[in-house]
Amino acid sequence: MERKVAVVSAAQTKYGKSTITGREMALTAAVDCLDRSGIDPREIDLGIVANCFGVVESQAHLAPILMTQIGNPTAPSFTVESACSSGGSALHIAYAGVRSGLYDCVLCVGVERVTHLPLAKSTEFFSMGSDYAFEGCCGATFPGLYAVMARAHMHERGTRSEDLAAVAVKNHENAAMNPKAHLQKRVTVDEVLASPVVADPLHFFDCCPFSDGAAAVLVMSEEMARKRGAEAVEIAASVRTGGPAALQSRERLDSLDAARLGAAKAYEQARIGPKDVGFAEVHDCFTIAEVMAIEDLGLVGAKEAARAAADGLTYRDGRIPVNASGGLKAKGHPVGATGLGQVVEIFDQMLSKAGPRQVPKNEIGLTHNVGATGGSCAIHVFKRLR
Amino acid sequence: MERKVAVVSAAQTKYGKSTITGREMALTAAVDCLDRSGIDPREIDLGIVANCFGVVESQAHLAPILMTQIGNPTAPSFTVESACSSGGSALHIAYAGVRSGLYDCVLCVGVERVTHLPLAKSTEFFSMGSDYAFEGCCGATFPGLYAVMARAHMHERGTRSEDLAAVAVKNHENAAMNPKAHLQKRVTVDEVLASPVVADPLHFFDCCPFSDGAAAVLVMSEEMARKRGAEAVEIAASVRTGGPAALQSRERLDSLDAARLGAAKAYEQARIGPKDVGFAEVHDCFTIAEVMAIEDLGLVGAKEAARAAADGLTYRDGRIPVNASGGLKAKGHPVGATGLGQVVEIFDQMLSKAGPRQVPKNEIGLTHNVGATGGSCAIHVFKRLR
Repeated sequence: MERKVAVVSAAQTKYGKSTITGREMALTAAVDCLDRSGIDPREIDLGIVANCFGVVESQAHLAPILMTQIGNPTAPSFTVESACSSGGSALHIAYAGVRSGLYDCVLCVGVERVTHLPLAKSTEFFSMGSDYAFEGCCGATFPGLYAVMARAHMHERGTRSEDLAAVAVKNHENAAMNPKAHLQKRVTVDEVLASPVVADPLHFFDCCPFSDGAAAVLVMSEEMARKRGAEAVEIAASVRTGGPAALQSRERLDSLDAARLGAAKAYEQARIGPKDVGFAEVHDCFTIAEVMAIEDLGLVGAKEAARAAADGLTYRDGRIPVNASGGLKAKGHPVGATGLGQVVEIFDQMLSKAGPRQVPKNEIGLTHNVGATGGSCAIHVFKRLR
Repeated sequence: MERKVAVVSAAQTKYGKSTITGREMALTAAVDCLDRSGIDPREIDLGIVANCFGVVESQAHLAPILMTQIGNPTAPSFTVESACSSGGSALHIAYAGVRSGLYDCVLCVGVERVTHLPLAKSTEFFSMGSDYAFEGCCGATFPGLYAVMARAHMHERGTRSEDLAAVAVKNHENAAMNPKAHLQKRVTVDEVLASPVVADPLHFFDCCPFSDGAAAVLVMSEEMARKRGAEAVEIAASVRTGGPAALQSRERLDSLDAARLGAAKAYEQARIGPKDVGFAEVHDCFTIAEVMAIEDLGLVGAKEAARAAADGLTYRDGRIPVNASGGLKAKGHPVGATGLGQVVEIFDQMLSKAGPRQVPKNEIGLTHNVGATGGSCAIHVFKRLR
């Protein structure tokens, strides 16, 4: 019989421009997560840090430093990097660790700090997540790569700039109600379309910001969670997949292989179908990414995807609320933290603690966390622990 | 009943100064490893890259690029970083993945390339593995930090520079018989002692070189290994531990908490004692590190450790052969690859394919892979698969 695995606590810093270092943000999120659970840090038997560019603050090997700081220096720990899916990958390794029986209580902490760098420098570092020898080195940064996918989507499906803008409008509205969000301001379709073109057809407001931030998630075996009487949600599916790293290697550009494959596996593992999902946090680094995500996940039909936000389907009171947190688009995107920050929203929503952002159908939540342009994807399904 | 986990193939590039990129070295080691096993790359269901400083070649998110190159783009993959114990940590995650039942066949590939950088630049990157806010930023690079431990060992135990030099002499002699080693030349105690002082009391020949290189290890469930009739050794213990990250946080400086704790756990998991170990590859980034390692692992007594090499105990024909490969000291130390490169030696030795370096008692092998000054440690025990 498989061991069940649960999330028993989750916390994050405010995303945005940080005046403290990455290690301090990581510690802040970790301590908040531990405080919320009431667990003694010495009960943690594995620590996993999700981080991409710690070297910009001259700090590799961050995991044992964090574990030393929280008062559990002898616990094993390491860092996982999988571009923007580092957080989801950390959660997957935690899940495997508990399933294996080797670990009972795993702390995952994602962190990134880049806004102290000049913009050209952070752009340079981010582009290292592409297949650099074929993409980044030729000047193709992520707005450009996602613009190629957006253009393909428009060509194949008739998707319009207004449809993409509607995704930004929805996610900014959600973020305006999220005190932890980077961009707590509403925008209109007209404002999105009037904003400068970053990479045609993507406007400034189609793109997520560079954010600093940290997020922490505490994972336990079901047995330990029950013994402690902890508030808990079950990780009903934990799936990592991959896809061809460079755009040039793909058969299609309007969908991510890794996401479609991951969704199929996740639904099978959780023994549900896409219609059972109550709400989702998906990887909307650009508005087009949310359009592809909700179709790849089967949350909406192929013909509904492009206009889902414009038609209200993915609003908090819609058929399937997507990115109630504000998403990467407006909550922000500190790359190492993002995948775990998604889980913070899921945990709060499932415990009915999301305040004004609360979604009505909160029994089954899903996270979709993509690395780069789809070379990696982590999908998790969460259910109430029964 | 626990699932058993086996290593079924292992390969590495020659360590040294590479003229090809890290991604090319990683691919070379991966393909050699797959060729040796005869496995179809599409049978791999998880890929793990161990790497610390890929950003110096502008490449993060290396794992899906590698998986795309070997012809299995949809398999999940990610990078693990744990300073110099990245390789051992990758193997541990592979082990947990197979034990969990989520994976059957995991390819681990460690890689590092730094020698194309100016020496000051590579030194700067390496120092990011320290607790940078307290060590690296003050100019304490690794030779300096290990020199502090060496001085403490000399003070507490009466260890002499000649004893440390004897470790270098042994490991250089072994490396001289290893065509994959970086430094294939013998040295004498007098040459070590006459070499420039890098950080008192450590001389130039007490220090491992900066190396480029890659190593790959293929891990399978026992069931899959038997079904395929593969040459295999069992991973009888896989243990990761941690220790206080900075030297200033420790109660003692002549031993690593993470290694002593890890050894105790590993022997318990493998149901053996230290006397059962036939040979070991230990983390000798500096000669003093091997002295501490063999005592922390219980391979020699506390009073024997300092003089073990000088007395011949750790030579290939001694009581307990240590670093028959040449070790980090002379085989070389491409940080992301090192922990997996140790497993390449174990695999070859246990299959009696180590040529002139063959150790006589090859039924149980052990690897000891340390991150930085002991903030992390990975210990693995390997047995014949019965």
